[in-house]
Amino acid sequence: MAQNIYDNPHFFAAYSQLSRQIRGLDGAPEWHAIRAMLPTVSGKRVVDLGCGFGWAARWMREQGASSVLGLDLSENMISRAKADTNDREIEYRIADLETVELPKAAFDLAYSALAFHYIRDFNRLIRMIHQALAPGGELVFTIEHPIFMAAVHPHWIADEGGRKTWPVNRYSIEGERQTDWFAKGVIKYHRTIGTTLNTLIRSGFQLLAVEEFAPSPEQIAQTPELAEELERPMMLLVSARR
Amino acid sequence: MAQNIYDNPHFFAAYSQLSRQIRGLDGAPEWHAIRAMLPTVSGKRVVDLGCGFGWAARWMREQGASSVLGLDLSENMISRAKADTNDREIEYRIADLETVELPKAAFDLAYSALAFHYIRDFNRLIRMIHQALAPGGELVFTIEHPIFMAAVHPHWIADEGGRKTWPVNRYSIEGERQTDWFAKGVIKYHRTIGTTLNTLIRSGFQLLAVEEFAPSPEQIAQTPELAEELERPMMLLVSARR
Repeated sequence: MAQNIYDNPHFFAAYSQLSRQIRGLDGAPEWHAIRAMLPTVSGKRVVDLGCGFGWAARWMREQGASSVLGLDLSENMISRAKADTNDREIEYRIADLETVELPKAAFDLAYSALAFHYIRDFNRLIRMIHQALAPGGELVFTIEHPIFMAAVHPHWIADEGGRKTWPVNRYSIEGERQTDWFAKGVIKYHRTIGTTLNTLIRSGFQLLAVEEFAPSPEQIAQTPELAEELERPMMLLVSARR
Repeated sequence: MAQNIYDNPHFFAAYSQLSRQIRGLDGAPEWHAIRAMLPTVSGKRVVDLGCGFGWAARWMREQGASSVLGLDLSENMISRAKADTNDREIEYRIADLETVELPKAAFDLAYSALAFHYIRDFNRLIRMIHQALAPGGELVFTIEHPIFMAAVHPHWIADEGGRKTWPVNRYSIEGERQTDWFAKGVIKYHRTIGTTLNTLIRSGFQLLAVEEFAPSPEQIAQTPELAEELERPMMLLVSARR
C-alpha cells in the first residue's frame, strides 16, 4: 500500500492551507499549462487519479464531462470532496493507485495531478490506465519533475555568482526518496525522464506533449516569487493517447 | 551559419585526442545505448548529420546500409573522414545543419551524434529531416542533456555532504550558451526537454524512446571515473519515427 501521508492530521492541516487547496485550480500556477494540454472534456467519461478535494472533478463536469470518477487514498480528501460536491455524475472512491484496478475501456480521459510520484510501481499503474481507456482516449498527468526530486538534499543553493541554483545528484539512481514536507519522511519515488516516458511508450501510449511548467512573465509580475521556477523545472506535464 | 569551432586548429588538435575520436564508436560510453535504439540498418539509406571522422558512417555500411551520406560543417572533419574511408557508397559533404536541405523522402534512417545542440533553429532542422525521411523512416540522435547545459557555471560542485552535484539554473531560459571546451566561447543552444520533444512531435514524428545515458556497473568497473555520470544526465538520446 502506498504511504498515506494525507491522513496524517498535521500534514493534512498544513496541506489544506496551500493556495491550490484554498483557491482551487486557479491557485495552482501550472493549471493554465495543464488546461492547454487537455482534450475537449465535453461528453467524456473521466477518471481523476488522486482527486484530492475534487476541484478538477467539478471543473471537468462544468466543462461537460458526462461522468467523473475521483479516486484518492486519503479518507480526509474523499470526505471533503464529497462534502463539497453536489453532482450525481461525480463519484468519489477511496482507492490506492498502487493496486487499484479499473474496468477496461471505461474512460475517455484519465487525469492525474501530482500523484504518480508517490507510486512505486509506475509500470503497473500505466498499463492499467492504458487498458481502462477506450481506444483514442487520453492520459494527462503531472508529476514532480525528476530533476526536482533526484538529489540527496533537494533545496535551493547559490552558485558562485549568488544565483539561485538547484542541485542535481543521484539522478540515474531510481527509487525511494524521503523528504520532509509538512511532515517528516514523506515517501516519493524517483524515476528518470527516460523511464517515465518509455514506460508510457512501451505500454502502448503515443506521446502528445511533454511540458515543464515555467511561469509566464504575467504570472511573475503578479507573483514575483514564481520567478525562481525559471531556474529549474519543478513539474513535468505529459499528455498521451491510447 | 553555425559556429565552426571544429576548424579552429587548437580546438581540432585537442578534440582529435578524445577517446571517441581515437578509438571510434567503442570509445564513446553511450554507444551501446545508441546501438540499442537503432533500427536494423541493413538495406537502409542513411544520412549522418554531423558525421565527424566518419566512424558511424563506416559502421552503418558494415551493418549493411545501402548508402550513407555524411554531413559535417568542418573541413577538417570531412577531409579526415574521406582519408579514412574507402567505400563508394559513402559520400561525405561539407554542410551547415543550420541551412542544409536534403532531398525529400530520400533516406530511411537519419542519425546524429552530439551535433544538434550546436544548432540555433532546431525546428527548421527537424522539419527538414522529417521531409527527408521516407514514411516509416527513423531519426536517432543524441544531444548534450538540457540539464547538463542550462546553468551559468556548468561544472561539478559539492553538496553539503560532499557529494558530487551538478548545478541547474536558468533552465527555462532557452537560447545561446557559451562555454570553454578546448577553446574559448564554444556556442551551444539550450532548449528544454519539453521543447526538444514537442518539436519532434509537432513536426510529425512519433517518439519511440527517450534515454538518458547512464553507465552500467560493468562500465564503471572498467572505467571508474564514469561513476559520476550516475549523478546527473549528460546526454539525451532520442529515437522517433516518421
